[in-house]
Amino acid sequence: MADISTKRENNPEASDDFSQRTKKTKTDHEDGQGENGEESGKNVLSGFQTTTVLSDSAREKTIFVHGKLAEQNAVVILEKTPISEDTLSEIFTASTLTLDIRNDIYSTYRLQAPPHLNEMKVTVVCPATEKHVKKYQRQESFLVEETADDYQSITLPFIQKQSFSVQWVYNILEKKAESERIVFEDPDPKLGFVLLPDFKWDQKQLDNLYLIAITHRRNIKSLRDLTSEHLPLLQNILQKGKEAILQRYGLPASKLRVYLHYQPSYYHLHVHFTKLGYEAPGCGVERAHLLTDVIQNLHSDPDYYKTRTMSFSLRADDGLLSQFKEAGKL
Amino acid sequence: MADISTKRENNPEASDDFSQRTKKTKTDHEDGQGENGEESGKNVLSGFQTTTVLSDSAREKTIFVHGKLAEQNAVVILEKTPISEDTLSEIFTASTLTLDIRNDIYSTYRLQAPPHLNEMKVTVVCPATEKHVKKYQRQESFLVEETADDYQSITLPFIQKQSFSVQWVYNILEKKAESERIVFEDPDPKLGFVLLPDFKWDQKQLDNLYLIAITHRRNIKSLRDLTSEHLPLLQNILQKGKEAILQRYGLPASKLRVYLHYQPSYYHLHVHFTKLGYEAPGCGVERAHLLTDVIQNLHSDPDYYKTRTMSFSLRADDGLLSQFKEAGKL
Repeated sequence: MADISTKRENNPEASDDFSQRTKKTKTDHEDGQGENGEESGKNVLSGFQTTTVLSDSAREKTIFVHGKLAEQNAVVILEKTPISEDTLSEIFTASTLTLDIRNDIYSTYRLQAPPHLNEMKVTVVCPATEKHVKKYQRQESFLVEETADDYQSITLPFIQKQSFSVQWVYNILEKKAESERIVFEDPDPKLGFVLLPDFKWDQKQLDNLYLIAITHRRNIKSLRDLTSEHLPLLQNILQKGKEAILQRYGLPASKLRVYLHYQPSYYHLHVHFTKLGYEAPGCGVERAHLLTDVIQNLHSDPDYYKTRTMSFSLRADDGLLSQFKEAGKL
Repeated sequence: MADISTKRENNPEASDDFSQRTKKTKTDHEDGQGENGEESGKNVLSGFQTTTVLSDSAREKTIFVHGKLAEQNAVVILEKTPISEDTLSEIFTASTLTLDIRNDIYSTYRLQAPPHLNEMKVTVVCPATEKHVKKYQRQESFLVEETADDYQSITLPFIQKQSFSVQWVYNILEKKAESERIVFEDPDPKLGFVLLPDFKWDQKQLDNLYLIAITHRRNIKSLRDLTSEHLPLLQNILQKGKEAILQRYGLPASKLRVYLHYQPSYYHLHVHFTKLGYEAPGCGVERAHLLTDVIQNLHSDPDYYKTRTMSFSLRADDGLLSQFKEAGKL
């Protein structure tokens, strides 16, 4: 399903991303422009002509629609709002109920609430570019099984050819950006790392806690590069990362999921710390590797990750998938 | 978060589960009792007194509430309905929009839709027992790191003492139940298995495809029992399972996530086949183990799963968690 959340990638262009923009503009908005909806009182969406539904989620109650608004390309995103405890008693008293099914102690109803207690959030991108449309389009995923040879002959050349910029990572490590966001740092050039909240986490509640540890060492692209030589680094991140999170957020290690991604979003070694029970994007078995498992595997086989066949999922529009297809590997 | 979906477990009691009940009663409902809501036209929920919110999900737009209805214990579940493509044009024309933020090509609004286009689904359990309340209560999860010794001294005795019944599994293997649901069978007593849809899958669309392969061999409790001796069995399940799903559903292996759970829900070896991209419950890295990884690990170390420290998540009310706590392991 389409992902509205901010995700940082190799490509620094990605930082010009929608969620980040809205975050930035929350302050712009304070000066009060157009607070009361459309200037003319007109519902701007009444003229929207749907072209196609890009994606939707019955589970999350969202829909992403491509269409035309005043003859311009537009993407409209609808999302129902969470049900707030504060509004419950008013919902219970002021709504209309229709019985659907009754059996024994169980009944189901359809409920129509007063509109102000049951809003939707609408996001409009207009004019939308082809890139926006593609971004919100549901993408098929494919499981790739990458042998050690495939990594050398397909993945590694692809990574090198793209020469993805991780300048934003270096900016963090060098305190040229986001230094005020750093939760913990071990400055050691070989074993050290910077721990900071992921952009996906609004830091308002611990339920969806998400931090990233970024190594000071710059020559480790991913899990594939790790050998037993890196065990002190990995153990240091696990130990000090857990301690820092306990100290700052009061969350013990038994509440944390600590893992690496393969493939990662950017090729500079980093470790994810998320709250156990939070279904963070990318915590599925087809992408995540528990740091404790990585450490154990390298202990018993120094070249574990250099020799394994690694399975991961790639979206249909991922350049790496095309490379695997061209090589006849799918 | 609370799980409304049917899940089969060791304990056969679990089959007296809510989703199954609603499923069963959908036909009871056809005879039309009380179709038009409350007999008296009264909104039954207007008298509901909230005691506590058991759990909620901002992502899924659900809330589970415990309270009193006419002096009886009750659980009320609210869930917003998915946004349907069919209603989009009416939502766009007939709603009230309020501008929230505008910046460049991006704007966000709050939308108030006509109530009949924006319903909620309500489920009422009344009178509710303590068991219902507990079932819908949000449960904290804890990460447990089980060493090989912990398995022998804590987990194995716990499994044996519980002497969980897997009679429902034997009923399937012996064709005493659900034989009409079998998608594929290899009857070989050593290498064979039965493949059938999981209860969680309604089989209406492939998006959330979920099948289970259950081994004919009865002496393998879980991943912990597997050694290289079982490689032919595991490879047989992987190969023939994938072939059967391709043949029956047209879904190739590159669209499948094939994995085992540790801890499993019941201690008779079984393998999960789910559609890649479907965030199936239990596909997270803290519970799922890709079958291809299991096979590789046993190839390089016949006792891999007998010797490893295994990490998994347990709910606060899980008896096994108490055992680990009593042993001072958390």
